[in-house]
Amino acid sequence: MLKINVITTGGTIEKIYSEQTSSVENVDNKIDRYLGRLRLPDCEVHVAPLMNIDSLEMTDADRSAILGLVEQMLSEPSPIVITHGTDTMVQTGRYLKEALPELKVPIVLTGAMTPLGFEGSDGLQNLTESLFAVRILGPGIYVVMHNQAFPIDHVRKDRDTSRFVWVD
Amino acid sequence: MLKINVITTGGTIEKIYSEQTSSVENVDNKIDRYLGRLRLPDCEVHVAPLMNIDSLEMTDADRSAILGLVEQMLSEPSPIVITHGTDTMVQTGRYLKEALPELKVPIVLTGAMTPLGFEGSDGLQNLTESLFAVRILGPGIYVVMHNQAFPIDHVRKDRDTSRFVWVD
Amino acid sequence: MLKINVITTGGTIEKIYSEQTSSVENVDNKIDRYLGRLRLPDCEVHVAPLMNIDSLEMTDADRSAILGLVEQMLSEPSPIVITHGTDTMVQTGRYLKEALPELKVPIVLTGAMTPLGFEGSDGLQNLTESLFAVRILGPGIYVVMHNQAFPIDHVRKDRDTSRFVWVD
Amino acid sequence: MLKINVITTGGTIEKIYSEQTSSVENVDNKIDRYLGRLRLPDCEVHVAPLMNIDSLEMTDADRSAILGLVEQMLSEPSPIVITHGTDTMVQTGRYLKEALPELKVPIVLTGAMTPLGFEGSDGLQNLTESLFAVRILGPGIYVVMHNQAFPIDHVRKDRDTSRFVWVD
Repeated sequence: MLKINVITTGGTIEKIYSEQTSSVENVDNKIDRYLGRLRLPDCEVHVAPLMNIDSLEMTDADRSAILGLVEQMLSEPSPIVITHGTDTMVQTGRYLKEALPELKVPIVLTGAMTPLGFEGSDGLQNLTESLFAVRILGPGIYVVMHNQAFPIDHVRKDRDTSRFVWVD
Repeated sequence: MLKINVITTGGTIEKIYSEQTSSVENVDNKIDRYLGRLRLPDCEVHVAPLMNIDSLEMTDADRSAILGLVEQMLSEPSPIVITHGTDTMVQTGRYLKEALPELKVPIVLTGAMTPLGFEGSDGLQNLTESLFAVRILGPGIYVVMHNQAFPIDHVRKDRDTSRFVWVD
Repeated sequence: MLKINVITTGGTIEKIYSEQTSSVENVDNKIDRYLGRLRLPDCEVHVAPLMNIDSLEMTDADRSAILGLVEQMLSEPSPIVITHGTDTMVQTGRYLKEALPELKVPIVLTGAMTPLGFEGSDGLQNLTESLFAVRILGPGIYVVMHNQAFPIDHVRKDRDTSRFVWVD
Repeated sequence: MLKINVITTGGTIEKIYSEQTSSVENVDNKIDRYLGRLRLPDCEVHVAPLMNIDSLEMTDADRSAILGLVEQMLSEPSPIVITHGTDTMVQTGRYLKEALPELKVPIVLTGAMTPLGFEGSDGLQNLTESLFAVRILGPGIYVVMHNQAFPIDHVRKDRDTSRFVWVD
């Protein structure tokens, strides 16, 4: 039975449509609810909701808080999935890589272009892939989105096509 | 075989999540796609997309355009469903009532608090009820939402509870 | 606040896919769960699960049990929705009509061609229509399916087209 | 752009509820439709529908036909996903392994316990994982189901728990 730690930080994947404001907002957690739809019989998923913000608003202090929780979790040899807004996901991943030179497990950052539960959402696909990826990938920091696993030094978001692409 | 005319004007029911702007927008029609999920074997539904706007931005000219299309459709004895933003749905309904004193068919205004296809959406429920209501209700103008049919003179939106309520 | 009594008797609408037998079976109630997806703010729905059987296996004793529960419920002036297999839905409706000559509320029988929660299911549409219908229809016994309300003496199931049709 | 070949052979994953027989049947392909819900921007998925049968009815001739198509596809270095009934998935996988001693790509067998599009289905999860797995796994034959990748010599289906488990 593998333990997987999931840190949630907000981003589009967790946005909720608010009937009061008629807009999408980061106000409530919903990763847990969607993880409940997956069959993970040999897996103990531990979800830690750390913050719930748009990643364009993520500060140095926020990234430091993520690093702090990751370091604490790394006291055990469990892989980590971090859900994160796509706009600064790569920035956070590179920050973690610099601070964590000798990783012994994979850390996967993932998110969504359209919120979980909205028609056409890629959120459950990305969660499914990420939870699978941390069982297979070697130590290191990756972005896992849309059927691909990118090492953190070789990826950028392409806004025009709503996807991530390889960079050399 | 009953013909039902559906006029779409936008509103929350038809909002779409835009990955480019990370917000919900009235940019594309989707009523048709959702009507395709209903079984309407004795019914010919004719959808006329008239405009696609937030009802808070609806002008007198827009309401006049709705009235014009309704009058044209009333040359045949088919009931009419109008999808509309909830914020000014009652205003549009009363405007139509004043202009159409001798209705021989029911006209139903409906919409949604959460867009079609978003988790927790009431859109398909309201469409289902409205298409059923126009077969049963007598001539007049109604709001049909959330299991209720309100005569247009006896209804208001209650923002706090995201529903419509009876007024005397 | 209107009270609506719902009696569930099984039928396709409530069938569940069993991974053990690889077939669909009437083993568990799920109407409640799907009613929870509807917005019924002015409505108190009371669900009474009476039996859970394929309506082709429904016996005289079963119909008598349905009648008994209906009579008991009719001590209050609340309308009734009965979910039922489509194959003998009309038979049960006519049996109730004969036994209940002086109805003061509408009784609606409904069901589904494809189970609730299966792709292409008509179950939630029929539930939505039935809960709406009992607010609008006069006293009497009806089948409500696929956007139509049929008086019980003027309806039969058409197996070839998976729908109900009018009979004179 | 990676090409992935998908061979469909039927099984529960592709079963459809038939309103005529009130049972689930292997009569039509639906893998394609569900693949269309996934975002696979760097991937060219080629679906080859080979047969559509319950895997308990799969004959030696059927397995030989699968092997024939696999051999033909292996003329190019593209990985292969085979959708298959779970009951004899392992048997087919071992048959392929014996016949294909020098594989240079991964071949993944997958399927579902509940058909695609039925509430609680694991089908889309397994497809998502399998399409991801063939990008990451080394050459060999695997079962990918429920967040796990099993080498074909170390897996069996456990009927009681509706899952696959490791065997030494």
